[in-house]
Amino acid sequence: MITVILVNPKYSGNVGAIARNMKNFGVKELRIVGNSDILDEEAYIRAVHAKDILDNAKLYNSLEEAIGDIDFVVATSGAIGGDRNLKRVPITPRELAKKSLEIEGKIGIVFGREDDGLTNEELELCDLLVSIPTSEEYPIMNVSHAVSVILYELYVTRIEHEREIPYNVKMRVASKLEKEILIKLFNEFVDNSDIPDYRKDLCKVIFKRIISRAFISGKEANTLMCVFRERKKD
Amino acid sequence: MITVILVNPKYSGNVGAIARNMKNFGVKELRIVGNSDILDEEAYIRAVHAKDILDNAKLYNSLEEAIGDIDFVVATSGAIGGDRNLKRVPITPRELAKKSLEIEGKIGIVFGREDDGLTNEELELCDLLVSIPTSEEYPIMNVSHAVSVILYELYVTRIEHEREIPYNVKMRVASKLEKEILIKLFNEFVDNSDIPDYRKDLCKVIFKRIISRAFISGKEANTLMCVFRERKKD
Repeated sequence: MITVILVNPKYSGNVGAIARNMKNFGVKELRIVGNSDILDEEAYIRAVHAKDILDNAKLYNSLEEAIGDIDFVVATSGAIGGDRNLKRVPITPRELAKKSLEIEGKIGIVFGREDDGLTNEELELCDLLVSIPTSEEYPIMNVSHAVSVILYELYVTRIEHEREIPYNVKMRVASKLEKEILIKLFNEFVDNSDIPDYRKDLCKVIFKRIISRAFISGKEANTLMCVFRERKKD
Repeated sequence: MITVILVNPKYSGNVGAIARNMKNFGVKELRIVGNSDILDEEAYIRAVHAKDILDNAKLYNSLEEAIGDIDFVVATSGAIGGDRNLKRVPITPRELAKKSLEIEGKIGIVFGREDDGLTNEELELCDLLVSIPTSEEYPIMNVSHAVSVILYELYVTRIEHEREIPYNVKMRVASKLEKEILIKLFNEFVDNSDIPDYRKDLCKVIFKRIISRAFISGKEANTLMCVFRERKKD
């Protein structure tokens, strides 16, 4: 179970955008260290269909209070180069996502102030530091976009792990048999053509590879079969 | 080389946030289909230190114009469930990132309108469809957050790849012209075949989509051309 914890956010628009990101990636629990003024109209506008996450957000006076019942506390930082974080070796969001699969308790992801991140004291309260790899030219992301990247990584890693289909695609991917029939028809077609013999095998190999890479659907496979089947009647 | 293409963005704040995301992940080229009013003060405020990307953004009247020199055009969609996209099998950002390592030409990532995405006609101009896996409860992301997730995936996959394989031989992906010639030869082949007329168009559409999705190489395209070219001599 993932909880997002914001420490003294300054811009209510960011809080709303973060609520939306949370709902996009199935995370429900938002905690805010700071005062309740941040949940203003702008926050609700930016949350769009994630207003319930703002309604249920809990407010705290300190990070220590906010993480009281969290089993695994992850700090985030966008400024790894600074002195502040030299004591910590950060891991990437992907490494965090893999580790998260082994954690059964509550995971809290802590995001610091827009301008100044987390203090040393706050970092000390956390179990782990995560940093998103970014360009050296401009490493500092907007906080709501950092949230989207980290929650995305946790989400896709979990669903890949659970071996679910990432999204609800109604299209049926071609079965092994359908692909085999299509490839067989193509091969017969090539054999019956006047392509020079030395090129025939290469054509067959390439067609097979393309079909494999293209995530061809059942309907697509069946339709293309007719292209090569019909020509055999010539 | 990655280019971000925005089709008729409505909110200038999103455009500014996208410019910031681009600079965070080392992407420089922004193209906008729509009018120049979108680059207003709000856009520049949200861009923070990525104002140069807005300064250098190019404006176009249509997506077709905007992708004129792009070798590989990737559409993005947040609404896979809808009828509109049933014809296309989307890939994930991670799959796109892995495939992008094989492409040497220009890659364009196209993001649609905030409220209504891309039209069917616009989708047809693209080689591939990417969709970010999200919660069914609230699948629609804000566009600037979708940009951050996709550019993040492309960025980390590239730097991980460069670390793992410092010196790699890349396969040359087929150019736009090579793909066009292959598709033209296939279409002529279908027209000259005895496939029932009502199925011919479907065959052509499916072949074009498969070629687009398969990241076909220059060598593969040229080899397959002979399959359909030779048969014309029958």
